[in-house]
Amino acid sequence: MPTRDLSQPLDADATVYPGDPAVELAPAATHETDGYRVTELRLGSHAGTHVDAPSHTEPDGRDLDAFDPEEFVFDARLVDCSDASAREAIEPAELPADPDAELLAVRTGWSDRWGTERYVDHPYLSERAAAHCADRGVHVGLDALSPDPTPSGPAPESGDEPTGVPAHRELLGSGLFVVENLTGLADLPERFELRAYPLALARADGSPVRAVAVW
Amino acid sequence: MPTRDLSQPLDADATVYPGDPAVELAPAATHETDGYRVTELRLGSHAGTHVDAPSHTEPDGRDLDAFDPEEFVFDARLVDCSDASAREAIEPAELPADPDAELLAVRTGWSDRWGTERYVDHPYLSERAAAHCADRGVHVGLDALSPDPTPSGPAPESGDEPTGVPAHRELLGSGLFVVENLTGLADLPERFELRAYPLALARADGSPVRAVAVW
Repeated sequence: MPTRDLSQPLDADATVYPGDPAVELAPAATHETDGYRVTELRLGSHAGTHVDAPSHTEPDGRDLDAFDPEEFVFDARLVDCSDASAREAIEPAELPADPDAELLAVRTGWSDRWGTERYVDHPYLSERAAAHCADRGVHVGLDALSPDPTPSGPAPESGDEPTGVPAHRELLGSGLFVVENLTGLADLPERFELRAYPLALARADGSPVRAVAVW
Repeated sequence: MPTRDLSQPLDADATVYPGDPAVELAPAATHETDGYRVTELRLGSHAGTHVDAPSHTEPDGRDLDAFDPEEFVFDARLVDCSDASAREAIEPAELPADPDAELLAVRTGWSDRWGTERYVDHPYLSERAAAHCADRGVHVGLDALSPDPTPSGPAPESGDEPTGVPAHRELLGSGLFVVENLTGLADLPERFELRAYPLALARADGSPVRAVAVW
């Protein structure tokens, strides 16, 4: 079966959400000293390509470890929104009226900016577009940092930056998942199977995943 | 398709190889302070259920990120070695002469001891048993900490403990993978598909995975 890797690389250059832990990889054992190589990983639960649990934004939402792994295999449908501009809202009219899929994979094209300052200026889902998906029980994946606008600097405190995460709350508040920081969506078939198994982390509000498309 | 989770939980109680980093999960953002929950993960590249790269023990071995993700989907065959005792070697006679599979999933039954001191006293593959697999180009998975005997305390320095990792070197030195700390092998069908996609870590000597059986 044709397979494509939809995962961004996890290294010290990985773009993270403002305020999230950076990705750090450090030697914990080496061939020279120990006879084998082990790496210490430090990263946030939302680093790289990852799945958001309902509990990410919902105090009463379920953690990822409350779901069976097969629930992270999705009948996915690709939606090309790559004509959206920086920090532009994607509206319901740009999404299928009847998604006829378990997950909408929204292509913004922003994955090309991974690792650059411009990556945070991605398009996003308007609250109504997120509600459109939530009302239809459809999970959302996207090749951008967030379905909500991302603050352009460190975590906002002044009130000058947008606040709140309405698209997240629409989706996660409906018990759905959001898969963020996908890549490789260009030229995918319109229908594919998305596999995005989270790690078996305890009380997981999110987890890095190796996202794979199979068709 | 029937699916079973073959992954040990990743939390602070996770058994790690002596000397490896412990698993630590700490809040990085909270609903109360930030409006969303993010967790900082600290763990070793060989924490929990994980895949060993050839580069784990081989200075010239390939890292996991040098392989395509579909190479971590295995036509697997279950081998029941659960009559092996603590720290007993599994010999080639206990393995199929012709594995007729991409990966042998060796059940020791030791997964029941996860999180206890006895987990390190697992059976292991003799060097000849590992060579039996390596000669046939067969990857190995097991429900134990290592295909080699595990030191019973902190990393050995005195020479009183076993040294070297001959089973690892046979397998990884042949460019094969080892999947460690599986669980849930009891009562699996003899043939199944093992999915064990590693994270897209840079220069990965190993990676935690969500291991899943599908049949």
